[in-house]
Amino acid sequence: MGNSGSTTIQDASEREALRRIFPRLPQSRATIVGPGDDAAVLAAPDGRYVVTTDMMVHGPDFRLAWSSPFDLGWKAAATNLSDVAAMGAVPTALVVAIAAPPTTPLTDLEAIADGFRAACDALAPGCGVVGGDLSVSAALTFAVTAFGDLEGRAPVLRSGARPGDVVAVSGRLGAAAAGLRLLFAEAVDASGEPDASRFAAVAAAHPAEVAAQLRPEPPVADGPLAAAAGATAMLDLSDGLALDARRVAEASGVAIDLDPSLLHAAAAPGVDLRTALTGGEDHGLLAAFPPDTVLPGGFRPVGIVREGAGLLVDGAVFDERGGWDPYLEWDGGRG
Amino acid sequence: MGNSGSTTIQDASEREALRRIFPRLPQSRATIVGPGDDAAVLAAPDGRYVVTTDMMVHGPDFRLAWSSPFDLGWKAAATNLSDVAAMGAVPTALVVAIAAPPTTPLTDLEAIADGFRAACDALAPGCGVVGGDLSVSAALTFAVTAFGDLEGRAPVLRSGARPGDVVAVSGRLGAAAAGLRLLFAEAVDASGEPDASRFAAVAAAHPAEVAAQLRPEPPVADGPLAAAAGATAMLDLSDGLALDARRVAEASGVAIDLDPSLLHAAAAPGVDLRTALTGGEDHGLLAAFPPDTVLPGGFRPVGIVREGAGLLVDGAVFDERGGWDPYLEWDGGRG
Repeated sequence: MGNSGSTTIQDASEREALRRIFPRLPQSRATIVGPGDDAAVLAAPDGRYVVTTDMMVHGPDFRLAWSSPFDLGWKAAATNLSDVAAMGAVPTALVVAIAAPPTTPLTDLEAIADGFRAACDALAPGCGVVGGDLSVSAALTFAVTAFGDLEGRAPVLRSGARPGDVVAVSGRLGAAAAGLRLLFAEAVDASGEPDASRFAAVAAAHPAEVAAQLRPEPPVADGPLAAAAGATAMLDLSDGLALDARRVAEASGVAIDLDPSLLHAAAAPGVDLRTALTGGEDHGLLAAFPPDTVLPGGFRPVGIVREGAGLLVDGAVFDERGGWDPYLEWDGGRG
Repeated sequence: MGNSGSTTIQDASEREALRRIFPRLPQSRATIVGPGDDAAVLAAPDGRYVVTTDMMVHGPDFRLAWSSPFDLGWKAAATNLSDVAAMGAVPTALVVAIAAPPTTPLTDLEAIADGFRAACDALAPGCGVVGGDLSVSAALTFAVTAFGDLEGRAPVLRSGARPGDVVAVSGRLGAAAAGLRLLFAEAVDASGEPDASRFAAVAAAHPAEVAAQLRPEPPVADGPLAAAAGATAMLDLSDGLALDARRVAEASGVAIDLDPSLLHAAAAPGVDLRTALTGGEDHGLLAAFPPDTVLPGGFRPVGIVREGAGLLVDGAVFDERGGWDPYLEWDGGRG
């Protein structure tokens, strides 16, 4: 993020910073009392609300050589919207806490706000930011809490898959992981550190993969569609299909058997089977549907639920580790 | 926070860390779907819910030489509970995102969880933690989002104070600021850095002031009591009475006139008038009530609402800056 000559957050008061940001943020149709008081008040028309929270930290979760402030706002919104959708709910509102280095230009905060607005407008129209907090920290950090409305439906949990159900995925598998692999292979300098100028060439050569990693477009609308179609289980594909499918299998007390040819059809172009199975951050939806269901929205079948336990691919146990655990994999890098 | 020989978060998986923490966290009576899925589902019996979010970052917001992990969990909970109470709502639930250095022992995370539980049990029984996120960061960071139930009442905003209303405060003024002043004066080493061994002596000599700063006990129950008693305006005293009273005056289009003798009676023992007016982090409640109201709970009168604008003390304009702006005042220190 640049800081050439513009006002930084240490030059401005928190009040001034908020005054610059708030007009750019998306409005929520659920707002009863909006920003400016000690708390917001939101509508919960059916007497319930869905809540999820997620933190993104510079270093383990993003690199400033690769992500623009706009991209960061977009991704922080999109990943939380996807968690709401995975319950079968319609996202209604976000609250956003940001801790930023004191030298961060206010224009970067504005671009972050623009990313939040663009993501809400594109992925969950009517969802907006109803509150927030600004702090200082050496590491740029986003903490987003997202809310949703179940519209009278039961929430779709991980635990409801039944033998015979069709397993389906919305969103293309593996593109985000392919993008991350490209970035670490080609958008780095000679010492392996993320490099902004090399990034530009990679982004130009592989726009789909890079966008899937840096500016994901989760199929948010497919969450409520799946719930309405009778989905028995659902989750957000954040840690890789294999690991996430095992979670559904474990929570539901069943086995999930994935079909390689269906996986190939559900994978992003050029993505191999292993990446489709183990690549993280897809932010698609994995769901199980009763056998006769006409799959809604962008869902494609990838397998079937069976009696048993664990994850199978083409009938054979697949126990390869997949996915992303920040504690195991963070190298402390910061580029 | 110590790390002698115990398992750290980089040794454990996120799943193992969460398995250690969750049983220690307080339960929420509003839970419909609890932790473990993509999102929680909470009850909103009157079709609305109150939401507030706040971030605490090592350095600007706390020092590890002074705050134990238990204290940090307590304070992160208490300050958010107070914001919910200031709307006149009963706190129902929290979600907690924590980013911690990879070397943080799991026992410290357990102590943080214990602090959350103790604060909820003491200040808002029935309120619990319904979800969270764990990340790694060089700076220990807490992002808490808190929820509340208005129980059918209108929310109490900052904007409703009317000429003739009584201005009242619940909680003792200035103790937290007096504690912070003591810590920076006496609990530091020769170079001015926070020092754990000197801290012990200060905490023993001035337990009330130090506790007010590090383990505040906001009068959470007085928020709903004030709403039920007809409070016309209310806010959480986080940035100092003078600054916060000006916010109520501005939002309500009135002047607030504080009475020095009443302020003295509402101040913590030994706290001078200036500290009572400008000291931050009291986390008491400032409210306005119609003239004939029998003040509920722990509220004490401190002044009156008049026609006009701004803050007066004993009828004279008081425009001294007070309160805490992290962007202006952070020195980058980390002790």
